[in-house]
Amino acid sequence: MNSNNNLDILISEVGPRDGLQSISATMPTALKLHWLTALADAGLKEIEVGSFVSPRLLPQMADAAELVAHMRQRSDVFVTALVPNLKGAEAAFNAGVQKITLPISVSEPHSLANIRKTHQQVYDEVRTVMALRNERFPHVEVEAGLSTVFGCTIQGEVPEDDVLRMALTMVELGVDEVGLADTVGYANPAQVRRVFTRLRNEIGSKAGSAHFHNTRGQGLANVVAALDVGVTTIDASQGGIGGCPYAPGASGNIVTEDLVYLLESMGLRTGVDIDKLVAARAWLKQGLPGEPLYGFIPDAGVGKNFHYAGGAR
Amino acid sequence: MNSNNNLDILISEVGPRDGLQSISATMPTALKLHWLTALADAGLKEIEVGSFVSPRLLPQMADAAELVAHMRQRSDVFVTALVPNLKGAEAAFNAGVQKITLPISVSEPHSLANIRKTHQQVYDEVRTVMALRNERFPHVEVEAGLSTVFGCTIQGEVPEDDVLRMALTMVELGVDEVGLADTVGYANPAQVRRVFTRLRNEIGSKAGSAHFHNTRGQGLANVVAALDVGVTTIDASQGGIGGCPYAPGASGNIVTEDLVYLLESMGLRTGVDIDKLVAARAWLKQGLPGEPLYGFIPDAGVGKNFHYAGGAR
Repeated sequence: MNSNNNLDILISEVGPRDGLQSISATMPTALKLHWLTALADAGLKEIEVGSFVSPRLLPQMADAAELVAHMRQRSDVFVTALVPNLKGAEAAFNAGVQKITLPISVSEPHSLANIRKTHQQVYDEVRTVMALRNERFPHVEVEAGLSTVFGCTIQGEVPEDDVLRMALTMVELGVDEVGLADTVGYANPAQVRRVFTRLRNEIGSKAGSAHFHNTRGQGLANVVAALDVGVTTIDASQGGIGGCPYAPGASGNIVTEDLVYLLESMGLRTGVDIDKLVAARAWLKQGLPGEPLYGFIPDAGVGKNFHYAGGAR
Repeated sequence: MNSNNNLDILISEVGPRDGLQSISATMPTALKLHWLTALADAGLKEIEVGSFVSPRLLPQMADAAELVAHMRQRSDVFVTALVPNLKGAEAAFNAGVQKITLPISVSEPHSLANIRKTHQQVYDEVRTVMALRNERFPHVEVEAGLSTVFGCTIQGEVPEDDVLRMALTMVELGVDEVGLADTVGYANPAQVRRVFTRLRNEIGSKAGSAHFHNTRGQGLANVVAALDVGVTTIDASQGGIGGCPYAPGASGNIVTEDLVYLLESMGLRTGVDIDKLVAARAWLKQGLPGEPLYGFIPDAGVGKNFHYAGGAR
C-alpha cells in the first residue's frame, strides 16, 4: 500500500510483472528500466516491477532484483514484486522491495495445477514467509493476492464462502492485506460488489486491491462495481498486456490508460498524467516489437471535455 | 418500448441502423434480411432496422421500408427506425414501424452542423411529426433520442441543465419517451448516474434508453452506472459497429454480445441466447466483407461459470 494521501484511488501498475510474464519474448533490461522510469514519471505510485521466480521457468523475470534496486532510487514510487515461495521472498526482501504479493489460489485444483501445492502446503509456505518477514524484514508489506476468486477454468464455480475463508486464513497467518483477483475474466459487477463487501466486513482495512482481467471485456464495468463498495486500489497494466489472451482483442489485464481516464473523469484523483502515460507505451513497443497493445484512449484521445479530477496536471 | 414483461432489461439492437449507417459500403438487402432474422431468432426484442433518410445521402438505408415490412411479419420483435424529419416520419409510419426515434442534438452547434437546423427549427419539425402521428398513426411510439448529452466535439461541455430543458421541451411537444445518447464517447459513470437520475426526476416514466458509444472503452462501465439508476433499455450494436471509429479497436457502439454477457451474468434477463447471437455475426461478415467486428465474448466465449439469469435458454 502506498501512503500518498493526495490520491483517491491508487493504481497498482502490474504490466512489468503480470504483463511481461505472460509474453514469451524477454524485454531487454535496459528498455525495462526506461519503461519503468517513464511509468513512474507519468505519476504511477505503485509498480509491480517483476516476479522473483526461477529464471529457468521465467527468463523474462530474471532481472527482477536489478529492477527493484533501480526503482528504489526514487522516493515517489512504491516498489512491489510477486513472490511464489520462501526462496523468492528472501530474494525479493534482499533486493529491497517495499511489498511482496503472494499468489494464493482459492481453487485447490488450480493451486495444484499451477504450483503443485495443496492448500495446506500453501499455508505452510506463507507461514515461513511471514516468519522471515517478521524477523528480518519487518518494514516490507505482504499482500496475499487471492486468485480464481470469481471462478476457475478448472474447478468452475468458486464458492464465495471459500474466498472469505481463505482471506481469513491469510489474515490469521499475518499478511497485511488481501487482494482479490479475477484470474480468468469471469467476474461480473454484481458478484464484485458482493464479494468485496463481504471481504471488507470480514477483514476490515486489510481488504486490498481489485485485480481484473479483461478477457470478456468486463474489466472497467467491474471497476465501477469495486469503486461502489469502497475498493481504493486497482491493478492494471499498460496496454492491457498480460493474462492469457484467448484471441486478438481479448486482452489480459485491464488497460491502465483507459482506467486512468475512467477514474479521473469520475472525479477520482489517480496522480497519473495521461499524456505521459500514453507516451510510455513507446518503450513497450520498442522492447516487445510485434506484441499487440490494447486500449482505447491511446487511439481516441481524452477528447475535448476531459478534466483531471484535481484540476490541470 | 417493448411490452415483453419477461425481461429485466430491454436491449435495443441498433446495429442495422447506427452500425450500417456509419459504414460506407452497402450491405445487400437479402443479407440484411437474413441478419435481422438471425438477430430476432437470437431473442432480441427490439431492433432499429434502418433510417428513413434520403437514399442519395445514405444509400445504405434505401431499403428501410422493405426491412420494416419484412420484420413486421413476426410478432416477437418490436420494429423501430430513425427518422430525421417529417418526410422520413411519414415514410416510416407508412412502412409500418412500431416506433420512431427522432435524433435531437442538445448542442445547437452540433444540430446546425449535422442537420442545419436551429433548436427552434427542430421544435417546429417535431411538432409537425407529432401532429401527423397523433392524427393518422396514433399507435406508433415516438422517442426523442437526445444526442451530445454527455459532451460534444464541437461545443465541448454540454450543461446538464440544457439536457434537462431539452428533455422537458420534447415531453411538452408530446413525445412518448426521451433517451439519452453519448454520441462521441465522452460519458463517465458518475455523469451517467447524475444525468439519468435528473431525467427520471423530471419526466418520470418517459425517461427512455441509454445509448453509449465505446470510443474510449467506457461503454459497459457506463451501462453499470445506468443500471444503478434504473435505466431498463440499453442500445447496443452487434459487433460494436457504428459510430465514428477513430482507429482500429476504438469501436462505435457498445457491443451487444458483451452487453448480453454483462447483464445475464448480473442476473438480469435479456431474453437473448448468446450462442445464437454470436452465430448471427456470420451474416454481418458476409454482408460487409473486410469490415472489422468488435467484442470479447465472440472470441473468449462465456466461460465455464456462466449462467443465464433465468436459467438455461
